[in-house]
Amino acid sequence: MWGGRFERGPAEIMEEINASIAFDQRLYAQDIAASKAHARMLATRQIISQADADAISAGLDRIKGEIDQGSFTFSRSLEDIHMNVESRLKELVGEAAGRLHTARSRNDQVATDFRLWVRDEIDNLDRALAAFQKALVAQAAKHTDTIMPGFTHLQIAQPVTFGHHLLAYVEMAARDRARFAAARVRANENPLGAAALAGTSFPVDRKQTTKDLGFAEPMRNSLDAVSARDFALEFLGAAAICATNLSRLADEIVLWCSPGFRFVRLTDAYTTGSSIMPQKRNPDAAELVRAKCARVTGALVTLLGVMKGLPLTYAKDMQEDKEAVFDGADSLALSVAAMTGMVEDLEADKTAMRRAAGEGFSTATDLADWLVRALKKPFREAHHITGRIVAMAEARGSKLEDLSLKELQSVEPGITAEALKVLSLDAAVASRTSFGGTAPENVKAQVKYWQEQLK
Amino acid sequence: MWGGRFERGPAEIMEEINASIAFDQRLYAQDIAASKAHARMLATRQIISQADADAISAGLDRIKGEIDQGSFTFSRSLEDIHMNVESRLKELVGEAAGRLHTARSRNDQVATDFRLWVRDEIDNLDRALAAFQKALVAQAAKHTDTIMPGFTHLQIAQPVTFGHHLLAYVEMAARDRARFAAARVRANENPLGAAALAGTSFPVDRKQTTKDLGFAEPMRNSLDAVSARDFALEFLGAAAICATNLSRLADEIVLWCSPGFRFVRLTDAYTTGSSIMPQKRNPDAAELVRAKCARVTGALVTLLGVMKGLPLTYAKDMQEDKEAVFDGADSLALSVAAMTGMVEDLEADKTAMRRAAGEGFSTATDLADWLVRALKKPFREAHHITGRIVAMAEARGSKLEDLSLKELQSVEPGITAEALKVLSLDAAVASRTSFGGTAPENVKAQVKYWQEQLK
Amino acid sequence: MWGGRFERGPAEIMEEINASIAFDQRLYAQDIAASKAHARMLATRQIISQADADAISAGLDRIKGEIDQGSFTFSRSLEDIHMNVESRLKELVGEAAGRLHTARSRNDQVATDFRLWVRDEIDNLDRALAAFQKALVAQAAKHTDTIMPGFTHLQIAQPVTFGHHLLAYVEMAARDRARFAAARVRANENPLGAAALAGTSFPVDRKQTTKDLGFAEPMRNSLDAVSARDFALEFLGAAAICATNLSRLADEIVLWCSPGFRFVRLTDAYTTGSSIMPQKRNPDAAELVRAKCARVTGALVTLLGVMKGLPLTYAKDMQEDKEAVFDGADSLALSVAAMTGMVEDLEADKTAMRRAAGEGFSTATDLADWLVRALKKPFREAHHITGRIVAMAEARGSKLEDLSLKELQSVEPGITAEALKVLSLDAAVASRTSFGGTAPENVKAQVKYWQEQLK
Amino acid sequence: MWGGRFERGPAEIMEEINASIAFDQRLYAQDIAASKAHARMLATRQIISQADADAISAGLDRIKGEIDQGSFTFSRSLEDIHMNVESRLKELVGEAAGRLHTARSRNDQVATDFRLWVRDEIDNLDRALAAFQKALVAQAAKHTDTIMPGFTHLQIAQPVTFGHHLLAYVEMAARDRARFAAARVRANENPLGAAALAGTSFPVDRKQTTKDLGFAEPMRNSLDAVSARDFALEFLGAAAICATNLSRLADEIVLWCSPGFRFVRLTDAYTTGSSIMPQKRNPDAAELVRAKCARVTGALVTLLGVMKGLPLTYAKDMQEDKEAVFDGADSLALSVAAMTGMVEDLEADKTAMRRAAGEGFSTATDLADWLVRALKKPFREAHHITGRIVAMAEARGSKLEDLSLKELQSVEPGITAEALKVLSLDAAVASRTSFGGTAPENVKAQVKYWQEQLK
Repeated sequence: MWGGRFERGPAEIMEEINASIAFDQRLYAQDIAASKAHARMLATRQIISQADADAISAGLDRIKGEIDQGSFTFSRSLEDIHMNVESRLKELVGEAAGRLHTARSRNDQVATDFRLWVRDEIDNLDRALAAFQKALVAQAAKHTDTIMPGFTHLQIAQPVTFGHHLLAYVEMAARDRARFAAARVRANENPLGAAALAGTSFPVDRKQTTKDLGFAEPMRNSLDAVSARDFALEFLGAAAICATNLSRLADEIVLWCSPGFRFVRLTDAYTTGSSIMPQKRNPDAAELVRAKCARVTGALVTLLGVMKGLPLTYAKDMQEDKEAVFDGADSLALSVAAMTGMVEDLEADKTAMRRAAGEGFSTATDLADWLVRALKKPFREAHHITGRIVAMAEARGSKLEDLSLKELQSVEPGITAEALKVLSLDAAVASRTSFGGTAPENVKAQVKYWQEQLK
Repeated sequence: MWGGRFERGPAEIMEEINASIAFDQRLYAQDIAASKAHARMLATRQIISQADADAISAGLDRIKGEIDQGSFTFSRSLEDIHMNVESRLKELVGEAAGRLHTARSRNDQVATDFRLWVRDEIDNLDRALAAFQKALVAQAAKHTDTIMPGFTHLQIAQPVTFGHHLLAYVEMAARDRARFAAARVRANENPLGAAALAGTSFPVDRKQTTKDLGFAEPMRNSLDAVSARDFALEFLGAAAICATNLSRLADEIVLWCSPGFRFVRLTDAYTTGSSIMPQKRNPDAAELVRAKCARVTGALVTLLGVMKGLPLTYAKDMQEDKEAVFDGADSLALSVAAMTGMVEDLEADKTAMRRAAGEGFSTATDLADWLVRALKKPFREAHHITGRIVAMAEARGSKLEDLSLKELQSVEPGITAEALKVLSLDAAVASRTSFGGTAPENVKAQVKYWQEQLK
Repeated sequence: MWGGRFERGPAEIMEEINASIAFDQRLYAQDIAASKAHARMLATRQIISQADADAISAGLDRIKGEIDQGSFTFSRSLEDIHMNVESRLKELVGEAAGRLHTARSRNDQVATDFRLWVRDEIDNLDRALAAFQKALVAQAAKHTDTIMPGFTHLQIAQPVTFGHHLLAYVEMAARDRARFAAARVRANENPLGAAALAGTSFPVDRKQTTKDLGFAEPMRNSLDAVSARDFALEFLGAAAICATNLSRLADEIVLWCSPGFRFVRLTDAYTTGSSIMPQKRNPDAAELVRAKCARVTGALVTLLGVMKGLPLTYAKDMQEDKEAVFDGADSLALSVAAMTGMVEDLEADKTAMRRAAGEGFSTATDLADWLVRALKKPFREAHHITGRIVAMAEARGSKLEDLSLKELQSVEPGITAEALKVLSLDAAVASRTSFGGTAPENVKAQVKYWQEQLK
Repeated sequence: MWGGRFERGPAEIMEEINASIAFDQRLYAQDIAASKAHARMLATRQIISQADADAISAGLDRIKGEIDQGSFTFSRSLEDIHMNVESRLKELVGEAAGRLHTARSRNDQVATDFRLWVRDEIDNLDRALAAFQKALVAQAAKHTDTIMPGFTHLQIAQPVTFGHHLLAYVEMAARDRARFAAARVRANENPLGAAALAGTSFPVDRKQTTKDLGFAEPMRNSLDAVSARDFALEFLGAAAICATNLSRLADEIVLWCSPGFRFVRLTDAYTTGSSIMPQKRNPDAAELVRAKCARVTGALVTLLGVMKGLPLTYAKDMQEDKEAVFDGADSLALSVAAMTGMVEDLEADKTAMRRAAGEGFSTATDLADWLVRALKKPFREAHHITGRIVAMAEARGSKLEDLSLKELQSVEPGITAEALKVLSLDAAVASRTSFGGTAPENVKAQVKYWQEQLK
């Protein structure tokens, strides 16, 4: 494969560590598309004949078909997808195959293939995240006024609506999509034509392959073109953040299914049983999504470590880019799909949610705010007064709304009957009408906003 | 501090683990700016009086001055920057201070402060990276035709120019700046007004504080506003990638200063000696930049780990966001500055570079390309022929250009005297005129392009 | 500092990135102890005079006193703790100070200091973990028969005792201590005498300093002695695993304090309030322990990244070892102490635990086991029968023990009244007498075992 | 599979994310061994009949044969290796198969299997590391007095021998083996009998299975037994450190093969060519070992992240333990084997090494030491004098040993002709006779020591 200078083949262990065909065969569609564009350009620029280009193109199409159908035999001794395809091409079209690699190196070839793959994967993930958002919005639409406890520190803080809670994840997913879109900009530049590292003396037209492959522009520096993997790092960074956002919802689903909460129920489709305990109904998919977040982070750490301190230009270390990216992408894609399924599958238990929202003096802030509004207390003083009232209720084992006006007045004489009204869950939720707040009217408006956006 | 419900103070170890003032005091300028904007808005919306707002504003200005000058006393028992400032404000302006926290919680306050800080830091880093690019372009301008070896696998591959090599880093830095700009978009949204988590019943105007603080828009979901730290993760992701790019140049500087290369020399300003070996001149700064890349990655891993699986909304875990971001940002800022200094400081040894470029049969590809162009050989065959010629030269211990025509023809009879011309370093470099290639004319054009961009 | 060859001082940014005194001053006690041992050995071997050694020793003692008392002035331009101490020593004892660095380099000096520091820290952590174990055992002793639900997938699985649950963490901590002990073995080797990297021509006695400093043996290879940091990596690895174990208990405490569980209550000493919500009682310390786990992992990732691919021997990159280790060690030490405090502080709510244990058909396995024992059913069939019984109970909204014998027999006619006995929580727990099982008698025996071990 | 309670099968995506058979089939030998031991014990304790145990055992042997030969059909709908084996067992032996899972759960079963796998893998790695050490010692034995430059900061520091350098890696590998041995202690404890989480009411004998499977002892706490994965973390920690040590040698091989060094040559067995540059001979295997270090770190980060904050006992998140461990183990095993091959394959170029050692004033320390010994200068003064001499030599472009006595005396009049003798490479190396130093006699002794150890 490497011309006339090597006398001996590789050691067995060398072949094992070196060959990438076991995983880079996933790039075959991109590799063939890029080779076809390259051949077309070589012919346009008369670097090879049109007849050769046609033969190459037809041969590549046939190879694509073979791989699509699973009839292609990959060979480890041919190292990688590029040489596997080229070798088969030679069988199919003879000498013309040997002209395809003119003005090209595996260095720019693999960078091109990999950028195309990452671009495609970003497009797939964007669609998947949009579907996830739609599932969230659809559930939110059913629960714009379903009251649940809002938590901080996993302690009950203030009542909110379940729809509002779900829409928080729509926002996160929107930012995830924006991050992937930003990563796509960096990925979508054309390294083809950089050749080994220094460019080429053949009169190539990099604009043609750029246009042909849908890239935004040819990369401006050939050394950079073959060395850069920051596009892959940025992809994995966006993936790790997205997986982290998903892991938060995953953890909540695990909690919500737990007997201490029972806020939602997943059907048999998304739960599993136990080999020993007949009563179990485990939210395995949610747990796996939570765990896979760590795996995407691991993939990012791998590639950051691989690239650290690598002198220009190409080094074989960079072959480790693909498995990290594939594993990160697969883990995330699976997580998004599983999460979408769970969000569609889950059924909220309004009663349990409302009951829980009534625990923990969740409307205490409303009382403090009333003291500010009605009695013109500075907030700090109002907070202090309310704290003492909460302590009183706690000591008596009663809820805030069960305290009598007299009891309230024993702490703060200025309190009037009007104050009692703010202590109900419905009043508390309805009052939070500030932009972004949890009042049902706000949540309805946000549902509508997102339905529009996601059309 | 927490009103009337707590009877006992925290345990000593609790105070130690819980207090954040040791590090979040770095947010003081942002905290005060945000509080001033909040107070102004509260007055506009008549939630507090104008007089109170004026007193608060004047008090906050004074506190800012005290902290600027180092005369402010931070107290650990007041936990964090927010309570330290508010407590001092109370000393200065009395009861009005107690009205500042109306319609606000530390949850939205800290999110606001931290977003402002990250935004400021991105702006600082953008300036620093532009200076780094300028230093690179200035060196590149001096070396548009300085020939050095281009490496792959740290083996000599093809001759390139030093200017071309330096411009590769300008491209990387440009993408780093673009990544930070993208992260800035996500950071630059206003959480203020989300209050604890659910929004507020006070008639706040979030658009006013948004405009006042230079945010692009108010966040649409209050739960998300206080829970989200993906903006910080994205910042650290961009920082880790940027640090990785820098680490590659750092490693090259270490190599280039090594006696096996001696491509560049750093002055006393950027080298250190040894406590035992009097002859040493060590490129410590480059090594530290290389190492700090791992540290930024560590900070990213920390925050990804912290956020994984956290149920909404605020959890105290999130207090660990700040030290990770500060350490990542500081490490990167130091690295960019040190790198800029080194690039300005280094002096290239053209002789050493050219000598090295002549090693390793670096123009073999040019011979192969000549065989394709002149003899119409398929590239694969040309590659094979050249491989045999290299093996011959290697066996004789001579360079390619020292082989006689006859010797060349003993491998491939079609070779003519014209082929010998492509074997010189200058010819090889000059021939790579494809867009992005290393030909001096290209490099000059790229230098001009970047000089324009960086004006 | 570096003798006669440098003409110019470092650039400002160089000094900033290069100086380590801001953090390596933490090594002062170890640095001084190692210097004293070195000086003693030099005198014993007559490399320096006894008078010089005495002067050096006295001077070093005085410096230690100055640093202990905070009266020592550290100087950044002297770079690190080694040169700060040596410079002060010169002020105090004159020329003799210049003889201390004979047959030594900062390379072996810093490796020695750092190993001593890590060794000391391991000893501190071991003591702290023993105290943590004692706190756990003391709580377990109070709850050997307190029934709580055992969870898998955060679903109720089978009843266990709270004491049993706490003892699981005692086991984890025991393994953590064993890991630190193993790391100590690797740290406790003496690099002193390796000098810069190659050993020394002075007739040093490395066994003397080894014995003097309590090391197990002198390192056998001088290049390795100054290059190795795997002892620090192993320390951080053990720390990250220990922090991960702690984070699991931390997460449980957060859950147990949550209104859905209320299994335990922390006092005011380990909870905090809210700046806006007067009713809150947040388990901040537990959340911070959970978060700091990620931070220790981040420190480990940092140092693994720093050391990756570093050619021998010393490189300045390795200066980044200290902050990573310090931060990891501090985060862990704080976490262990806070966790010990929380375990001592928490009060279990037996009623809530027992109530929860009765939910979720937690004794279904016992029925299945009964079917195996009494009716000789294969377990798989017994599991299937019980599953159908659970489904029946679930459909009726009743507990297992509330089903009538008749109802049970409608699924499996062979069931007798004896089967009903195994369905009670107490019976279920008491029956699990296999070694390591949750039966109270077992738990009592384990408490006793650990009380013995921890004496 | 989960008995009589589930009415509907899993969603397609649920099955995809949930099934582990694609990777946990690697545990089949361990799973079958553990099941056989469990069945034997059940019969001994008369929990099942001897006839059933015999049938189970024979069936399991047959299944092992089928999997060994590749004739076993794995089914994704049966989820994992445990259910795949059990399902086939039922086909083979009927009802008896249903009795195997008595007093056992998949929770203790998978913990047992995985511990056995990790233990086996540690034993494999230990053998591989011993072979690596032997290869190093064999090369070192050939080069006990081959002089090469010792580097710090990749600058030439002092001359050392190549044998000494290689033995540094023998030391590192010895510590790696010790770390794996320590990890083995933690892995080698028996969780079998913990059942789901709480132990069992069947009269099992955990000591029997402990002895049968070669474990050291049964785990003392059933909750811990099914929850703990710190043994896997410790394994990955040891693997990451070992990979880091290997990456350092890998980086050195890349450097040593580079034209700036040419210290060693790898044959065709461990190098690859280029698809475009016919002259290339790339040390791909070394680069891949360097990169795989990051991958093992990524696997460790994954599992640390997975386990962080997981409440007891088993959670499905823990299913992610296996792929991380398998990938880390495979990457390391491949790296050790490739490294062993390269060490055996490499041929040192003594001439190039010696020439390089003569660069960079590498014997300056020897002159400084001479000034201390012969002229009784304090080391600091000697260092300063030598620095000025180096500066003089550097200015003249000559080596230290080429300076005349007169020139030396112009800096320090006390210098005598004797001083010149210490400036030669051979004298410098020979003089470093301190224990662990690079003197050939030391290196020979160390080679002998290690040959003994590795017998």
